[in-house]
Amino acid sequence: MAQRKKVSEAVIKRLPRYYRHLSQLLEGNIDRISSNELAQRMHITASQVRQDLNNFGGFGQQGYGYNVKMLHAEIGNILGLGQELPCVLVGAGNLGHAVANYTNFERRGFKIKAIFDNNPEVIGTKINGLTVQPVENLISFIREEAIKIAMLTLPATSVKELINDIVDAGVKGIWNFSYLDVDVPADVALVNVHLSDSLMTLAYKLNEIEHFKNVKK
Amino acid sequence: MAQRKKVSEAVIKRLPRYYRHLSQLLEGNIDRISSNELAQRMHITASQVRQDLNNFGGFGQQGYGYNVKMLHAEIGNILGLGQELPCVLVGAGNLGHAVANYTNFERRGFKIKAIFDNNPEVIGTKINGLTVQPVENLISFIREEAIKIAMLTLPATSVKELINDIVDAGVKGIWNFSYLDVDVPADVALVNVHLSDSLMTLAYKLNEIEHFKNVKK
Repeated sequence: MAQRKKVSEAVIKRLPRYYRHLSQLLEGNIDRISSNELAQRMHITASQVRQDLNNFGGFGQQGYGYNVKMLHAEIGNILGLGQELPCVLVGAGNLGHAVANYTNFERRGFKIKAIFDNNPEVIGTKINGLTVQPVENLISFIREEAIKIAMLTLPATSVKELINDIVDAGVKGIWNFSYLDVDVPADVALVNVHLSDSLMTLAYKLNEIEHFKNVKK
Repeated sequence: MAQRKKVSEAVIKRLPRYYRHLSQLLEGNIDRISSNELAQRMHITASQVRQDLNNFGGFGQQGYGYNVKMLHAEIGNILGLGQELPCVLVGAGNLGHAVANYTNFERRGFKIKAIFDNNPEVIGTKINGLTVQPVENLISFIREEAIKIAMLTLPATSVKELINDIVDAGVKGIWNFSYLDVDVPADVALVNVHLSDSLMTLAYKLNEIEHFKNVKK
């Protein structure tokens, strides 16, 4: 990580895919892979693969390709995985349940330490071994446990109320599922999962396919 | 939609955000907005806004800006909203529950017609008024109801088994939440929501912020 440089959002978004495909290769006991083969698996071009990985120093060897285990470890390092990343989850609705029960996250190091909600019917219930706490305890918990990551699976209005307080309390990374483009300081990382936006993209693509089919006729 | 052309993935991904922000402006009774103001709301540049919208014919007027209602309707049309889009939901776990209960989707036209699962404990239960059906009924349902969209909130292994059959049955749009880069024919639209990837992106950004903070010191 010595000579790290700023890389584009598009490359950052592909890194987890590399990591995922390399994990699958490892599970299949595959030791090495060419940029061509890796590209094919990921539906991108081989030059894209080489270009992406060159952002971080390359890792490939001419005529050999990539050592899967090494590349997996390197990309894991780049992604900041392999360390425990303590998180809080705010919002214990259906989506919160889904996130809390997603075993893959914990395998990647994301360890949910506590779950919070403001619904009296949900507070006190257990999700994946954790008792849902009242949201009033959230800020003190973040401070006391030095939590850096907050996963927000709650409505936009509640996110708006909470966001400044959790950042003040020390949160540096926010995973936001709410229908809201949140404003955060420059030293806070924010990743949005806007499910409605994603679904609208699907509608667009459907429409586009239909349109070009008719044009061709 | 007469002279529609192919637009880039990045533009397509921003369209739902435009739509969302314009919806909020409409709710706030705002009639018109300049590209500067719209850009500021969306944390992009004004020239980006103009460039994006020029892909579809512009819609703005020099010195006036955009008519919010008109632009909202136009982007809705481009996105293929405003019509009923009948869907099936496959997978009635936590994520399936979250998707089925998301009222925003229905407001955008996405109407879940039936929910399927292979878990005997879940089959027969009700989610948002729909009784979960055995997955054996899925293909005939898609054919009989001419369903074009499938939402897949189930594990990767099950998706792998299902995907060809649902495409053969006539599905043209797939919203895939599984940990799998699915292969589909060119005339089928696919949008993935890879939650693990998204979370790893957050880890990367956290790491990057930490790194550049240390470099500056």
